[in-house]
Amino acid sequence: MGKVICTGLGPGDPDLMSVRSHRLIRSARQIAHFRKAGRPGQARRIVEGLLAADVAEYPMEYPVTTELLFSSPEYDAALSDFYDHWAARLLDLSQADDVIVLCEGDPFFYGSFMHLYSRLSGLVEVEVVPGITGMSGCWTATGQPITWGDDVLTVLMGTLPEADLTHHMRNADAVVVMKTGRNLPRIKAALTAAGRLDQAWIVESGTMPTQRVGLLADYPHAECGYFSIVMVHGNGRRPGGEG
Amino acid sequence: MGKVICTGLGPGDPDLMSVRSHRLIRSARQIAHFRKAGRPGQARRIVEGLLAADVAEYPMEYPVTTELLFSSPEYDAALSDFYDHWAARLLDLSQADDVIVLCEGDPFFYGSFMHLYSRLSGLVEVEVVPGITGMSGCWTATGQPITWGDDVLTVLMGTLPEADLTHHMRNADAVVVMKTGRNLPRIKAALTAAGRLDQAWIVESGTMPTQRVGLLADYPHAECGYFSIVMVHGNGRRPGGEG
Repeated sequence: MGKVICTGLGPGDPDLMSVRSHRLIRSARQIAHFRKAGRPGQARRIVEGLLAADVAEYPMEYPVTTELLFSSPEYDAALSDFYDHWAARLLDLSQADDVIVLCEGDPFFYGSFMHLYSRLSGLVEVEVVPGITGMSGCWTATGQPITWGDDVLTVLMGTLPEADLTHHMRNADAVVVMKTGRNLPRIKAALTAAGRLDQAWIVESGTMPTQRVGLLADYPHAECGYFSIVMVHGNGRRPGGEG
Repeated sequence: MGKVICTGLGPGDPDLMSVRSHRLIRSARQIAHFRKAGRPGQARRIVEGLLAADVAEYPMEYPVTTELLFSSPEYDAALSDFYDHWAARLLDLSQADDVIVLCEGDPFFYGSFMHLYSRLSGLVEVEVVPGITGMSGCWTATGQPITWGDDVLTVLMGTLPEADLTHHMRNADAVVVMKTGRNLPRIKAALTAAGRLDQAWIVESGTMPTQRVGLLADYPHAECGYFSIVMVHGNGRRPGGEG
């Protein structure tokens, strides 16, 4: 009887995965990973070259991406069936040997694995290995600390209504916005309403070879990749007026 | 001419540092790390057993800890002198070879290194390697995802005034409070005022052999270690009504 082990892969650069994840992945005999239908998947790309030649791979293809609204019952039902199916499949696979589930970033921080975790708990031993979050990779890429002293940091999803985004952008010192993509116009409108557009940065493909970093106000496109991150750095207390 | 490289060490378990940090530390010929006067220091403890026998070590001892108020001019001046001194020293050391600065967690997330970074920028090449944050290690230790769906996460320092803590605890779905220690009574009062004390967890020494995890309401002490983390998990959207 094996375990289900979800390994956080970190922000994208394979060198930034943890020593433990790296070791688990190299010795894995069964791996599973999420991906959009027809795409190689970012998680799978990160581990390219690390896997044993005879590893069994199980791509878990999301049934829907952006065709349905998050809030629709159809979306909810399709995703629920998808997670039910894969929870049962992983449980079955774990009877013979450990199954390693690859997750970008940190699994318990907005990760899809949590929907399998909640279904598998109590049925099989499940272990989660934390990872460096995508946002850590992105703020490091900007060359500026995200928070100083007693700064308040708020993490927001770009899928939230504009009024909610604006409210939180006004109330926090440092702000990170994830799930950007087609939500970028609303995120920019909220930043503008909060008086913070000029301080905002956008990081695309953080820590990866295609990484691009710049001020959001200079960003030439109306939309961006879904995993691009928008952030406003905090500006809190620091000794001697540095900075 | 060498570089100054700040390596994030992650939450405490040496197995959770990144492959890159691990490699840099094993091959380091000069390391520096922060510690309280007279203490071995948590950063140094994490790398125990990894260092080369002939590595040169430079402990950077904070001049003050809790004797002075954060807001006092004396505290500010003492810390500013301390960072000025060590920035000059690291610059000097880097002339001969790379200097590796060890930092717990993720350096650009409330880390002390940023005060050296701001002083060294432009004078020497400085590289920062992100790490798994202490809070990621801690929420993984609770066995529950910190955020689901569109949850808003706010990170707060326990040093903030109670009214500020309460305000933010009411406004966010998921909450992480760092810098706890002697601030625990105020943090508990704020959680109570926000109606969230019953949902709060406390994690001490997350990912380390001495790790302890439990509900804050059951915590038997009035104060806790400064690096203990208090958190309230989000409870956002999930398909099929799971969890």
